[in-house]
Amino acid sequence: MDVKAIQARLAQFAEERDWEQFHSPKNLSMALAGEAGELLEVFQWLTEKQSSRESLTAEQLNEVSDELADILIYALRLADRLEVDLEAAISQKIDKNAARYTVEAARGNARKR
Amino acid sequence: MDVKAIQARLAQFAEERDWEQFHSPKNLSMALAGEAGELLEVFQWLTEKQSSRESLTAEQLNEVSDELADILIYALRLADRLEVDLEAAISQKIDKNAARYTVEAARGNARKR
Amino acid sequence: MDVKAIQARLAQFAEERDWEQFHSPKNLSMALAGEAGELLEVFQWLTEKQSSRESLTAEQLNEVSDELADILIYALRLADRLEVDLEAAISQKIDKNAARYTVEAARGNARKR
Amino acid sequence: MDVKAIQARLAQFAEERDWEQFHSPKNLSMALAGEAGELLEVFQWLTEKQSSRESLTAEQLNEVSDELADILIYALRLADRLEVDLEAAISQKIDKNAARYTVEAARGNARKR
Repeated sequence: MDVKAIQARLAQFAEERDWEQFHSPKNLSMALAGEAGELLEVFQWLTEKQSSRESLTAEQLNEVSDELADILIYALRLADRLEVDLEAAISQKIDKNAARYTVEAARGNARKR
Repeated sequence: MDVKAIQARLAQFAEERDWEQFHSPKNLSMALAGEAGELLEVFQWLTEKQSSRESLTAEQLNEVSDELADILIYALRLADRLEVDLEAAISQKIDKNAARYTVEAARGNARKR
Repeated sequence: MDVKAIQARLAQFAEERDWEQFHSPKNLSMALAGEAGELLEVFQWLTEKQSSRESLTAEQLNEVSDELADILIYALRLADRLEVDLEAAISQKIDKNAARYTVEAARGNARKR
Repeated sequence: MDVKAIQARLAQFAEERDWEQFHSPKNLSMALAGEAGELLEVFQWLTEKQSSRESLTAEQLNEVSDELADILIYALRLADRLEVDLEAAISQKIDKNAARYTVEAARGNARKR
């Protein structure tokens, strides 16, 4: 995924519409969380099994795809505004989790540490 | 960003810990929304101006970076489980938004359509 | 507010529709968070000033009222399912906050402790 | 539940700490959604069955009780700021849902209408 190219496209989109005034990091965090709420609504009355790829209808899969796109768009836009290097942040987070949840201690339980 | 490589790393991480049982799409949507909630908490008492890159402390920026990483991790993991092509989904969404919010109609207002 | 009467009404509503199967605490927490996301969407592109009673349109106020009702409904239903005494929980929380954020220390700043 | 008394207590709490400046409806919606995210985190890796009253540990029940209190506190505070009559809003919403989801049509399925 060419993160910088997508961020450039999103920045241009906002600029052309004079939307930069709305895209404060605070507001973008709200928009992202709003989309995460819409994602929840797809799954809220489904069992875990019904939420699997095999069980979802094409329409539900499209909805999920749509909401994930919205979430990514706001995450990338927010990262751009705050000059956060997403790829480095993800990599650091996975390393941190590997140290926090060692294979031995975490096997079969997802309890928070 | 090498999405497939990150997804492979996350899948291996889960497999080694026998965490696949927890990573139903339903559960991943909850984890993602939980992290989006933590992102909100960084900004909730700040003004929009205080939420800008220039005004945040290094600690706050680190927190945002951390939460964004968590959100991306769950989004990528969920996309993997449901075989959603994130890059295509984002591109389609931007095209859709361009048609929905034309420059003329949307200039200076972000009202939902 | 007669919490028990509302909870009884909600329980009957669910029973008549055979919806108890959907109302696990897990699912209710998702529904509540989904509605909290919709509440965010009302405010996300407004400034703090524009979010005040004086500045919102009647339509926006109705939306907020609607989302707050949804949030309360799911909160009351969840409390009922888990036999949580909401009034006691609120009272304890305010006492706890009073000890945690003393007037002297917290005056004029909302930093988390 | 004496909603007005709780709202008066919350208003006094904020006033004594000079926190009214932070309690714009926009900010309160963020705080509420942040707490809803924390509620999700209690349940995210549990099965629906494990999320029932019988299966939760005392500690988990306390966490849920705590998060529900936080959610209610922000909902009541927001309703106060916007002069929303919560009890009327809830009652209207239940009536609306009864018309939207008739017993015949909705029996056994929770599909959104």
